[in-house]
Amino acid sequence: MINGENEIRVRTDLALETKESLESDGSMRGVIFDEEYDEERDIRISRLEILNSIGERNMGRAKGVYYTFETSPMSFNDGEYHRDISEFLAKYLRDIISKHMEEKKPPFHVLVVGLGNREATPDALGPYVVNNLDITEGIGSGEENVFAYVSALSPGVMAQTGMETAEILKGVVDSTHPDCIIVVDALAARSTTRLANTIQLADTGIMPGSGVGNHRNAIDSNNMGVPVIAIGVPTVVDAATIVGDAMEKMLLALEEHSGVMSIRRALDSFDNSERKQFMWELMPENMSGMYVTPKDVDETVKRISYTLSEAINIAMQA
Amino acid sequence: MINGENEIRVRTDLALETKESLESDGSMRGVIFDEEYDEERDIRISRLEILNSIGERNMGRAKGVYYTFETSPMSFNDGEYHRDISEFLAKYLRDIISKHMEEKKPPFHVLVVGLGNREATPDALGPYVVNNLDITEGIGSGEENVFAYVSALSPGVMAQTGMETAEILKGVVDSTHPDCIIVVDALAARSTTRLANTIQLADTGIMPGSGVGNHRNAIDSNNMGVPVIAIGVPTVVDAATIVGDAMEKMLLALEEHSGVMSIRRALDSFDNSERKQFMWELMPENMSGMYVTPKDVDETVKRISYTLSEAINIAMQA
Amino acid sequence: MINGENEIRVRTDLALETKESLESDGSMRGVIFDEEYDEERDIRISRLEILNSIGERNMGRAKGVYYTFETSPMSFNDGEYHRDISEFLAKYLRDIISKHMEEKKPPFHVLVVGLGNREATPDALGPYVVNNLDITEGIGSGEENVFAYVSALSPGVMAQTGMETAEILKGVVDSTHPDCIIVVDALAARSTTRLANTIQLADTGIMPGSGVGNHRNAIDSNNMGVPVIAIGVPTVVDAATIVGDAMEKMLLALEEHSGVMSIRRALDSFDNSERKQFMWELMPENMSGMYVTPKDVDETVKRISYTLSEAINIAMQA
Amino acid sequence: MINGENEIRVRTDLALETKESLESDGSMRGVIFDEEYDEERDIRISRLEILNSIGERNMGRAKGVYYTFETSPMSFNDGEYHRDISEFLAKYLRDIISKHMEEKKPPFHVLVVGLGNREATPDALGPYVVNNLDITEGIGSGEENVFAYVSALSPGVMAQTGMETAEILKGVVDSTHPDCIIVVDALAARSTTRLANTIQLADTGIMPGSGVGNHRNAIDSNNMGVPVIAIGVPTVVDAATIVGDAMEKMLLALEEHSGVMSIRRALDSFDNSERKQFMWELMPENMSGMYVTPKDVDETVKRISYTLSEAINIAMQA
Repeated sequence: MINGENEIRVRTDLALETKESLESDGSMRGVIFDEEYDEERDIRISRLEILNSIGERNMGRAKGVYYTFETSPMSFNDGEYHRDISEFLAKYLRDIISKHMEEKKPPFHVLVVGLGNREATPDALGPYVVNNLDITEGIGSGEENVFAYVSALSPGVMAQTGMETAEILKGVVDSTHPDCIIVVDALAARSTTRLANTIQLADTGIMPGSGVGNHRNAIDSNNMGVPVIAIGVPTVVDAATIVGDAMEKMLLALEEHSGVMSIRRALDSFDNSERKQFMWELMPENMSGMYVTPKDVDETVKRISYTLSEAINIAMQA
Repeated sequence: MINGENEIRVRTDLALETKESLESDGSMRGVIFDEEYDEERDIRISRLEILNSIGERNMGRAKGVYYTFETSPMSFNDGEYHRDISEFLAKYLRDIISKHMEEKKPPFHVLVVGLGNREATPDALGPYVVNNLDITEGIGSGEENVFAYVSALSPGVMAQTGMETAEILKGVVDSTHPDCIIVVDALAARSTTRLANTIQLADTGIMPGSGVGNHRNAIDSNNMGVPVIAIGVPTVVDAATIVGDAMEKMLLALEEHSGVMSIRRALDSFDNSERKQFMWELMPENMSGMYVTPKDVDETVKRISYTLSEAINIAMQA
Repeated sequence: MINGENEIRVRTDLALETKESLESDGSMRGVIFDEEYDEERDIRISRLEILNSIGERNMGRAKGVYYTFETSPMSFNDGEYHRDISEFLAKYLRDIISKHMEEKKPPFHVLVVGLGNREATPDALGPYVVNNLDITEGIGSGEENVFAYVSALSPGVMAQTGMETAEILKGVVDSTHPDCIIVVDALAARSTTRLANTIQLADTGIMPGSGVGNHRNAIDSNNMGVPVIAIGVPTVVDAATIVGDAMEKMLLALEEHSGVMSIRRALDSFDNSERKQFMWELMPENMSGMYVTPKDVDETVKRISYTLSEAINIAMQA
Repeated sequence: MINGENEIRVRTDLALETKESLESDGSMRGVIFDEEYDEERDIRISRLEILNSIGERNMGRAKGVYYTFETSPMSFNDGEYHRDISEFLAKYLRDIISKHMEEKKPPFHVLVVGLGNREATPDALGPYVVNNLDITEGIGSGEENVFAYVSALSPGVMAQTGMETAEILKGVVDSTHPDCIIVVDALAARSTTRLANTIQLADTGIMPGSGVGNHRNAIDSNNMGVPVIAIGVPTVVDAATIVGDAMEKMLLALEEHSGVMSIRRALDSFDNSERKQFMWELMPENMSGMYVTPKDVDETVKRISYTLSEAINIAMQA
């Protein structure tokens, strides 16, 4: 960003934001994009499909389908709206699971994984969702007419476990043989306007860190051996990203305003490494590992966690 | 109990209490028992070794060494006493691990597992201990002169996961290859006088439910493929056990007091199934799955969890 | 109990259980009692009114109205049943508040107090309920057509604060001037069959410890200066009570069974202080401050807390 | 900032940062400033005293003494260093309390208040500190030779209570009559380099929001009627402040770099309201109520809370 060379990385976990930041004309190679609007529930639905390795390279993320649901703010306590979203999401969740279970018939066995750190509120979405799930695996009685039996785990983050989450999950999957994994995670968006009103649902799993490739830390069907559905809601913005965006916006504004002479020219006189250094010097110290999050993040995360766990509970029933 | 036929099961997780309840003369077959007293720290140390299958049958628990450390109450906030216990326990912990690592040399790789339910305070000891551990596995830098690198997991209980804890751990062990497991758990004692002043350290692993045998749910070296050290502290008493004990004590007291006629004779006129039914009718309703625990259990569990995590932290350092 | 002289106190926070234990013929002086059954929702409703100081002495509790609602078990996750109960309870709550607000008109100002210890799961009901309330006091905008604006506090227990809860609340009430207080608390029942399926709603406030009189620690209208409505659900049974009840049941059973000679006569040969000592010697050690609670108390407390907070949220709306 | 007119407010809770941002020559009117260095413990100690209303206006904060202790990072788990800091801090805490208790003699009665939101990790420092305090008030036994008896409260934030924290505390103080209040709070610094390595200790109380004056929401000796000592550690940076600072730094850098022509001149052509609008347009949307905090904030807050509670525990003992 700024100089188009990614010196300061734009970090977003939302495929939709990546697409927007690429200022594509809508016909990016290897990528299909569609939008629709659910008027009744006031939800904007976008569907982005990365078809092949060209699309992967363009988008910097894995092949598969990414749904983005843009809702009204979910930080308000409107029980009915939350129930609407839960039912809406449950439908998509069942469809996306069914699509990957072609050969099998319900009841399926689904392992829900709450990623993130339950002790750090903005990162606690996954564990909170798991806390409110109906656990039906291992009860045994054998209600046959359900969509799936649910088992669940919140393994914690590497600072708490000393183990890669993918390693832990790989072991649990090999030992308990679910048909499918749903991972739930708090995401980083590029802009604070995305927080608490966007849900991403993807059939690609999750790539801690990000990027494409054969990462051994990816929680995806490659490593897990079963389909991995990912549900995420942005609760933070990467601090370096927000500051970098503000600085870029400032440059553009000054350039526009200053008329005659171009501020950019000042920058243009830099060579590339000067430019890089210039940007790094401007970035406030200690920004790596820092995120931006709202003061009332506890309320937001709690409410959204109910909505997501209810969506999963509904989807897994008959 | 009562009729010597275990109609109402005495439940205790403490090997020492099992031995005491057997009213042995000290020379039980297949079992070695020793006691000593650490005057300086005011800790009574007992060592009970179950040697073979005869001992297993007698004791109703697995072969191996069980240490019991009886301390002053650990519910008080005497920082220095807790540090003493941590250091004392660390020494035993290193010895017991070293004994099982004969062929290997430090640094070892140790997986600490916090068993139990973090949401139910009396059962939260294991997860709380894990919360305060120094996680050193996977940091990578390679401090070579430590006793062991530590990874950790609090998998939750079956009602939360839908999976047997042994299955989860088996998978994680197969995937991450620790040299040894330490499981930490809240225990059930037979008497409330044991709560918060007794630590059990065993090299036998843990048998959820209890009993001996080739259980697939046991968290032991058989199932895990590596040594499993168990650390536990009693925080509850099984409610049916405490009521049964009180009823038995009452019978004995009445018998003793009534002189001429024997109350016991009244019971003796029962045949066995009548007797069984008699006791069950006396037992208050809904006692299964109930435990007795102190009102200030939160303080107790918190303090003891610090003491245990500090013991592990010390033991794992160089 | 046992000797009718209450040497070992029967402890229950449920007025209904006190009444039952008095083996009244239904026409106790100073007390009015009614029952009805809500077939649709499967809720048994009892209304017990203590009219005067004679009733207070008979019942050992304060003058006022005590509703007891006996429901199906609330530990199951049947969302619809919980919503039914919330709406049912909301109606009673509004009626009981309105009755005490005669001169005033809505919107009222209601302070909801979550009593108990959030760190000890069985005692955490009050704080959990407060966590899920819609706080509407101080938002200011002035939605006029609500029943009441809600403020809330979970002050903690004396071991955490060093202050009597009544003192803390007295101060807060004097400073913020609510029209009415709702206190929510986990209760002790006499029997485990009461746990998680009984709601008590009273207009008498709460008497920590219990007993009648001019206690400075009572959280009642006398001390607070405004009406105090109490909502409670039993989550524990006092351990000494459950053991004492079992011992009494045993005596009765032995007496009945033994036919010719009376076991009770054995006890009858005691004088009073011998008898007292006999019972105390039978009582397991360390039973004071111990309670009996179910292993899955976390799920139960969580679910019931949602039901109660939803009831309050509904009641306070227009 | 930027235009020196504070259009975009620099928010910091650290008096030391306010002083630094004023680029004073060290002789600001109404303010005394001293620094020293504790070599043994590697702590830089600054003492800033605001003497009078001139100093108040200059500094934008209340009259009184502000100590700032700059330590090594407290996010590391070096138990010994934390104990050193606890003892160091305890000494200052006793001195500052004693200074305000001139007429009284120990044992004092101190109310410790944990400000902030226990559900939002970066804001949970105060409640966590209270969780680990030794509560000695109301135990009664009458250990006479202590410095102070401790009571404590974590009232929650206004979104949780619907009440101003100052109102709650005013009531509790009037009802329980402590000699002195210690408030503990998570602070906002101006720079992320301050997080987790700075402790501020002041005898001025706390002004939610900030600014000087006769605020009814201030938790200070004026409103409380007793001295209010404030202990705080920065755990967040205001998001708008960090972005604003970055933008200013960028302007200065461009100006310097561009040589001949002044970028500032571009800005200088703005009139004041244009300038204001320019800056606001550059500020990312939705920044109000947003803060920047590190990903591992849970570990940091936990460790620092132990250090502070230990400091208070030590200070209050004999």
